[in-house]
Amino acid sequence: MNDTPTPFPTAAPIPNVLAERYASVAMKDIWSQTGRIALERDFWIAVMKAQRDLGVPIPADAIKDYERVKGQIDLASIDKRERVTLHDVKARIEEFSDLAKRQFIHLGLTSRDLTENVEQLQIFRALKTVRFKTAAALLALGRQAEAHRDLMITGRTHNVPAQPTTLGKRLAMFGQELLIAFTRLEELLERYPVRGLKGAVGTQLDQLTLLGGDSGKVDQLEARVLRHLGFRASLFAVGQVYPRSLDFEVVSALHQVGAAAASCATTVRLMAGAGLVTEGFQEGQVGSSSMPHKVNARNCERICGFSTILGGFVTMTSGLSGHQWNEGDVSCSVVRRLALPDSFFAIDGLLETFITVLRQMEVFPAAIAAENERNLPFLATTTILMEAVKRGGGRETAHAAIKEHTLAAAKALRSGGGDADLLSRLAGDKRIGLNKRALQTILGESARFVGAAPHQVDAFLDDVKPLAKKHKGATDYRPARLL
Amino acid sequence: MNDTPTPFPTAAPIPNVLAERYASVAMKDIWSQTGRIALERDFWIAVMKAQRDLGVPIPADAIKDYERVKGQIDLASIDKRERVTLHDVKARIEEFSDLAKRQFIHLGLTSRDLTENVEQLQIFRALKTVRFKTAAALLALGRQAEAHRDLMITGRTHNVPAQPTTLGKRLAMFGQELLIAFTRLEELLERYPVRGLKGAVGTQLDQLTLLGGDSGKVDQLEARVLRHLGFRASLFAVGQVYPRSLDFEVVSALHQVGAAAASCATTVRLMAGAGLVTEGFQEGQVGSSSMPHKVNARNCERICGFSTILGGFVTMTSGLSGHQWNEGDVSCSVVRRLALPDSFFAIDGLLETFITVLRQMEVFPAAIAAENERNLPFLATTTILMEAVKRGGGRETAHAAIKEHTLAAAKALRSGGGDADLLSRLAGDKRIGLNKRALQTILGESARFVGAAPHQVDAFLDDVKPLAKKHKGATDYRPARLL
Amino acid sequence: MNDTPTPFPTAAPIPNVLAERYASVAMKDIWSQTGRIALERDFWIAVMKAQRDLGVPIPADAIKDYERVKGQIDLASIDKRERVTLHDVKARIEEFSDLAKRQFIHLGLTSRDLTENVEQLQIFRALKTVRFKTAAALLALGRQAEAHRDLMITGRTHNVPAQPTTLGKRLAMFGQELLIAFTRLEELLERYPVRGLKGAVGTQLDQLTLLGGDSGKVDQLEARVLRHLGFRASLFAVGQVYPRSLDFEVVSALHQVGAAAASCATTVRLMAGAGLVTEGFQEGQVGSSSMPHKVNARNCERICGFSTILGGFVTMTSGLSGHQWNEGDVSCSVVRRLALPDSFFAIDGLLETFITVLRQMEVFPAAIAAENERNLPFLATTTILMEAVKRGGGRETAHAAIKEHTLAAAKALRSGGGDADLLSRLAGDKRIGLNKRALQTILGESARFVGAAPHQVDAFLDDVKPLAKKHKGATDYRPARLL
Amino acid sequence: MNDTPTPFPTAAPIPNVLAERYASVAMKDIWSQTGRIALERDFWIAVMKAQRDLGVPIPADAIKDYERVKGQIDLASIDKRERVTLHDVKARIEEFSDLAKRQFIHLGLTSRDLTENVEQLQIFRALKTVRFKTAAALLALGRQAEAHRDLMITGRTHNVPAQPTTLGKRLAMFGQELLIAFTRLEELLERYPVRGLKGAVGTQLDQLTLLGGDSGKVDQLEARVLRHLGFRASLFAVGQVYPRSLDFEVVSALHQVGAAAASCATTVRLMAGAGLVTEGFQEGQVGSSSMPHKVNARNCERICGFSTILGGFVTMTSGLSGHQWNEGDVSCSVVRRLALPDSFFAIDGLLETFITVLRQMEVFPAAIAAENERNLPFLATTTILMEAVKRGGGRETAHAAIKEHTLAAAKALRSGGGDADLLSRLAGDKRIGLNKRALQTILGESARFVGAAPHQVDAFLDDVKPLAKKHKGATDYRPARLL
Repeated sequence: MNDTPTPFPTAAPIPNVLAERYASVAMKDIWSQTGRIALERDFWIAVMKAQRDLGVPIPADAIKDYERVKGQIDLASIDKRERVTLHDVKARIEEFSDLAKRQFIHLGLTSRDLTENVEQLQIFRALKTVRFKTAAALLALGRQAEAHRDLMITGRTHNVPAQPTTLGKRLAMFGQELLIAFTRLEELLERYPVRGLKGAVGTQLDQLTLLGGDSGKVDQLEARVLRHLGFRASLFAVGQVYPRSLDFEVVSALHQVGAAAASCATTVRLMAGAGLVTEGFQEGQVGSSSMPHKVNARNCERICGFSTILGGFVTMTSGLSGHQWNEGDVSCSVVRRLALPDSFFAIDGLLETFITVLRQMEVFPAAIAAENERNLPFLATTTILMEAVKRGGGRETAHAAIKEHTLAAAKALRSGGGDADLLSRLAGDKRIGLNKRALQTILGESARFVGAAPHQVDAFLDDVKPLAKKHKGATDYRPARLL
Repeated sequence: MNDTPTPFPTAAPIPNVLAERYASVAMKDIWSQTGRIALERDFWIAVMKAQRDLGVPIPADAIKDYERVKGQIDLASIDKRERVTLHDVKARIEEFSDLAKRQFIHLGLTSRDLTENVEQLQIFRALKTVRFKTAAALLALGRQAEAHRDLMITGRTHNVPAQPTTLGKRLAMFGQELLIAFTRLEELLERYPVRGLKGAVGTQLDQLTLLGGDSGKVDQLEARVLRHLGFRASLFAVGQVYPRSLDFEVVSALHQVGAAAASCATTVRLMAGAGLVTEGFQEGQVGSSSMPHKVNARNCERICGFSTILGGFVTMTSGLSGHQWNEGDVSCSVVRRLALPDSFFAIDGLLETFITVLRQMEVFPAAIAAENERNLPFLATTTILMEAVKRGGGRETAHAAIKEHTLAAAKALRSGGGDADLLSRLAGDKRIGLNKRALQTILGESARFVGAAPHQVDAFLDDVKPLAKKHKGATDYRPARLL
Repeated sequence: MNDTPTPFPTAAPIPNVLAERYASVAMKDIWSQTGRIALERDFWIAVMKAQRDLGVPIPADAIKDYERVKGQIDLASIDKRERVTLHDVKARIEEFSDLAKRQFIHLGLTSRDLTENVEQLQIFRALKTVRFKTAAALLALGRQAEAHRDLMITGRTHNVPAQPTTLGKRLAMFGQELLIAFTRLEELLERYPVRGLKGAVGTQLDQLTLLGGDSGKVDQLEARVLRHLGFRASLFAVGQVYPRSLDFEVVSALHQVGAAAASCATTVRLMAGAGLVTEGFQEGQVGSSSMPHKVNARNCERICGFSTILGGFVTMTSGLSGHQWNEGDVSCSVVRRLALPDSFFAIDGLLETFITVLRQMEVFPAAIAAENERNLPFLATTTILMEAVKRGGGRETAHAAIKEHTLAAAKALRSGGGDADLLSRLAGDKRIGLNKRALQTILGESARFVGAAPHQVDAFLDDVKPLAKKHKGATDYRPARLL
Repeated sequence: MNDTPTPFPTAAPIPNVLAERYASVAMKDIWSQTGRIALERDFWIAVMKAQRDLGVPIPADAIKDYERVKGQIDLASIDKRERVTLHDVKARIEEFSDLAKRQFIHLGLTSRDLTENVEQLQIFRALKTVRFKTAAALLALGRQAEAHRDLMITGRTHNVPAQPTTLGKRLAMFGQELLIAFTRLEELLERYPVRGLKGAVGTQLDQLTLLGGDSGKVDQLEARVLRHLGFRASLFAVGQVYPRSLDFEVVSALHQVGAAAASCATTVRLMAGAGLVTEGFQEGQVGSSSMPHKVNARNCERICGFSTILGGFVTMTSGLSGHQWNEGDVSCSVVRRLALPDSFFAIDGLLETFITVLRQMEVFPAAIAAENERNLPFLATTTILMEAVKRGGGRETAHAAIKEHTLAAAKALRSGGGDADLLSRLAGDKRIGLNKRALQTILGESARFVGAAPHQVDAFLDDVKPLAKKHKGATDYRPARLL
């Protein structure tokens, strides 16, 4: 670069862009550095208490000393220690013990006895947050589906007009996809197992030694730890780490949730392109800097972007799966430091955005009606085919005849010749066996062209509405203002 | 190339390499071209019968005519038709109808009413096959874990000796990973939903029209179709297609199964490198062409390869997820034609290989014992640390002392200095507070160094053994000879 | 399933779906089983001749015996042998030697000395085929861009109207993306290195031994092999295998080619949805079975599908990269058997499809003009803003004013209120400083709204047209009829 | 959780974990928020100056006003603005203009005219940094390869002993892989093209309007911008954005660099497991908290982790490729905000770690020699086979004989029977035709078993050493202390 370039300022810490731009406070709290240290200290204290109760000579006062200082979380000091020891857990042990002026935490524990359990707790809580917001999204989708239950819209396959459906049904369709993902999420949460206190290679040797070889006591300790963490089940046979394919399961479940939203967002982008809906503006929002009038589907695009991100994290965690060496190592470490929080920030940002879109989207019935009108005779062809068959025509023969006329009419339309007059073309063909009046009667009943769409919306609502009760606050959940 | 090159012969059809080299007959049957056509014809006949019962004017004789010819599957003829119409379903409709000399199949159906349901049936059956073989793998793993329940082996983290475990426990550890994947597979099979007969854009319009607008009859038709296919649930709100994130769910579940096996295979490769085990030879197998003596872990390597393949198919199906446009299109078509059967061929080949390895692997206890001996004083350091702490030493102080001596001993060892004499070094250090006799006593109890490993094997067996009853034939399942 | 199901017929071999449905004969020839065996036999013979020339005691008659039978490729016999030895290369050695009644091939070679080189030759040739077809695609794209160089079309960002461009420019834009990928392909082909004859762990030991320890002779042998294969460079330091990240480089280069085509195909799908273009019908093609009139962008969708497939193969080959253990193993084997040919079949099918679309696509200028008309006042807003700024208005002030009016006009339009009358709204606002006449003058010059678009097309053509000469036959390349 | 949990503290900003834990200051500077804003302001000023020179009425004083305040970068203030406007570029425009009290920046620019170019500049600089560090890594690898050029080590395929090689050659092998990636990186940097000033849909309309329709002036403006940025080439036909497959090209090139390092790191992990090398300790580093003596290959594991991360970012950017809609949108935005900097932080952390490992790794020749001794008779079998063939034995016959004896000897060894006595077994078999003395002579020449390995190291050094001159400082580059 010529001219005098602006000098690089001293580097401020680079923020996590997903957390700081898109994620909610609730999700950030789970994954913040201080939040994690708080979880760790609570964990250590819980272990000490249980160990003491089981006979390990830990003075009650020592535990109190730890409890007294547990809220003193000084990230800079811990960071400084780590830069000396080059061992993150060691640094946090020393910080806590120096604060308490004691040496009783982490007895018989290996680093992973701490970190695996605390990280799984973060995952578990984050999964619950995702479940809540997915419920909120389903409820918001349900409201929109209900509101537009009967609004006929031109259904499209291959992106070209195919048959009518209703806007409510179209939304319910994505709702169904989301429900499948939601069910999977529920199943996972129901059985998500924690590693527990298993020692350096998973044999519980050090706790056994510490507790005098009494395996009953070891089991009690494990049970106490489980209860403290709030899990139902622990893994009975692990190495230094829990199986990393479990991380893959978690992230792929998040991706599935995001995919349903992304399918919906993609279709909103398509509808916005045809002027049928917009995703709406938030108050004070500025559009494109050079094209001020545009109501861009930028939030929907963002949803698609988040889904692409989750796809990448699926690959990362997939890349960890099946690669355990013996009892484990830390080749997964840097991957999980990145992929676990960021996957949750991404799905959180995605759901915040999706709920916002569902709350503020605008529908333009006049534009939708105009599109229907242009396409109606074409959309009715399958019904006409059905009617022809019902009156005894051969399916293949009628199909060929209709194809001939619709192609000709479509060609006329595209050439700018105005009226395609498909009806007259069809009426004149004996292979079809329907005169103009019969055809007009069919078109006149256009309301029924949407088939079972409204009832399908009802079926969706039957599944979704009970979520309101089960997930308190989900119905009224309002994301914070999006960037 | 110089010289006269061998002329390329006329191209024989290129086989599906996963199917033809690795997959079992059972899995190939599900995905073969003829198998699929058979399913389609059965489906069409079932629909016709149901439609006739519900009042659609289909002569009973017509149905009989179709039934009479349904076994006449002529792939070449169908292929020829497709190359004319450029529409695969159309080609198969025409073939079947021309054979029967009737035009009654596919009434009110769109192509996807046929293909989605039939493909989901293939997926469903293939999932069941995978479930069976995963059960067989778990049982085989259980047998090996049981056989080596108490065989002490040097546990490793970061690939270096850490603490003793048992070989049985090591295998149970991978068994636990596989059990998680198995549970996920079971949950998925339990609720895997089928699209059903929903029409061009999912509104059931054409069946409604065909059945005189009687939605009760449409529901009966749907129920008949479900019963024919053997599914419990159908999706209530779909477009032309079922949500493609469901394919992602299936493939990611397969990947999770494969990952557990791949972790185990990776560790067998590591153990083989140290001469502790081999995966065994099949009868008549030739090793490396230039190094005849080597017992390569090539089947284990293959398992890892299959896992990598499944990771790629996860990406492919992930790439379909979240990309639905409106009521659907066929941008997924070529992807699913490849990724669905090939994912199942890959997991099938993987499981066939894994079960084979588990059946023929050889364990060398003498070599394992020799390794233990070399490493025992080092492996005992955590136990020594625990004992020091129990006797009142500060954890951090003792830790530092032990580190000092083990590093020095390790250095001596690596320099070829023969005996590292770690024990004397430790005994001489007051910070640890254990004399030589106390240390020798600790080492003498080496059997207990495996901690709870044998009991963890038992816990694994408790979970696995009931599978034998639930999955008939799984215990004795013997893969065909591997290539 | 109830009723008597159609029995599964005996399994016919399952074909490679990408090869048999989508790939060209040229590409299939490269990867066919017989084609590969032909390459191998030529390779063995070339090595024997060179070895003999360098003093290895191989009778000239023996070589002739091999040459005499090299065309006798009996896949069934080879397959039978492999099922005995469980070693594919061994089976092919024995077959060839038994045919020749000699034992002189493969002297001093390890399996990988054969297979690595032959597979790299397949890759090299397949890359050249891809280069040729990419050139053909660029030329076809150039023709369309030239034909529609000046055809104004509504440019869209965020899928909503933004500013005018030309259809030719839009196509050139995707052409530019393809050119970048093409350049990368050319760079790769220019330097693609082959492994050469390096022995079991890459040290050339066995050839050295065979040639009496004469490293000069070993170099001559290597040079002869290179010349035979047609490569310029061999790798100087490899293990048993060449680095697998080279496969990743190849497949990611293919994906990049496919991505450019997929971007173009995606936009054709969008344009087809608005009725502006279709991808055209091939002769005899049948549309949707139940909606005969639809001209679906199914080939464009297929292009997108191929791109998704290539993305998955990128993941597979990425999963091989960075995972070499020591001098190599075969954990990559099954992955490469699948991913290498299938990646090339996918890109081949993609390019065949893309060129077909570019040859048969139909453009509807009347429909394009109608869309422009609806959007013109809106599209002109950035020009109006520029003009306002040129006359001294503050950019931010004018921007705010224009935004206000365009949003109001857009709202009126969507509410079905017919004429949005944006012009009058703008003319009445002093912040903008342009009266109605000035505004009409701006709109009247709509031809210039396309900016430099036509010139950008010319720049594209300048880059593309020289390819016609460099790649003989590319201009007139016509894919076979697509399925 | 029971007990009173430690309350979550107010959320501190969550840092970018890759940047803050692993990346170098140089790389962080490129991607820091303030660094980016500095680049943007320089860009705006350069554009203003060029516009003024070309006749746009921008007062010289206004430019000075902007220059005066360009160093006043207040992230909090910008952030506040963005939270009002919900438009990041708008916020930065307003901040800068309010500081300067002028409204002359961003004339005729769309947001992407700013952001695309600035981001490409970041990419370009970051690529140069990666090139430098890759050169440094190659040089460090070269030094290790040279130091261990002749150190015989047991070469392994399938992770079991195969043939001898040298440690230097093994390292050179990974060096070769890295060289391929390095060449690709250089090619990419050589031609990496920038988008330039192309306007809202890429037609340069707004600059044309601003410059009175004078396309010559527009070209001059573009040239000035290019020169300012330091690029050689701009893209001639783009939309709102440059093609996203270019981002894929960049990230996949980074992954290829990382893969070579990861292959090397994987093999170091394997060697460490056998006690042949360690990656060394940094001063003050603490090993495992419960197993203090272990020298874990944690940095090598981290390298593998970074490679897995890059694989995920390959998927993310692959997921952007081929998905452009018309002239572009922002569905890529959130993905690029994450994937671009983080890919560079990952490769930067990887290279920092890799260079550190190469600088501090320890090799244990005594342990390596001991391993060779155990394996030598087995490793010599291919040489023995060659000798047998040279003396006229049939290859297949001798191969079978050798296989028989080596398998028996290996079995004896594994059963703990001590001496396998392979030599006597071989000497007794006439099919091989070598007596004991002949065999001992072969073994005695073990130095030559490494074949051409040392010469291959030399070839590597020939390629690598010139990099020292071309990349000043690369030879002595020392990463900062790793965490």
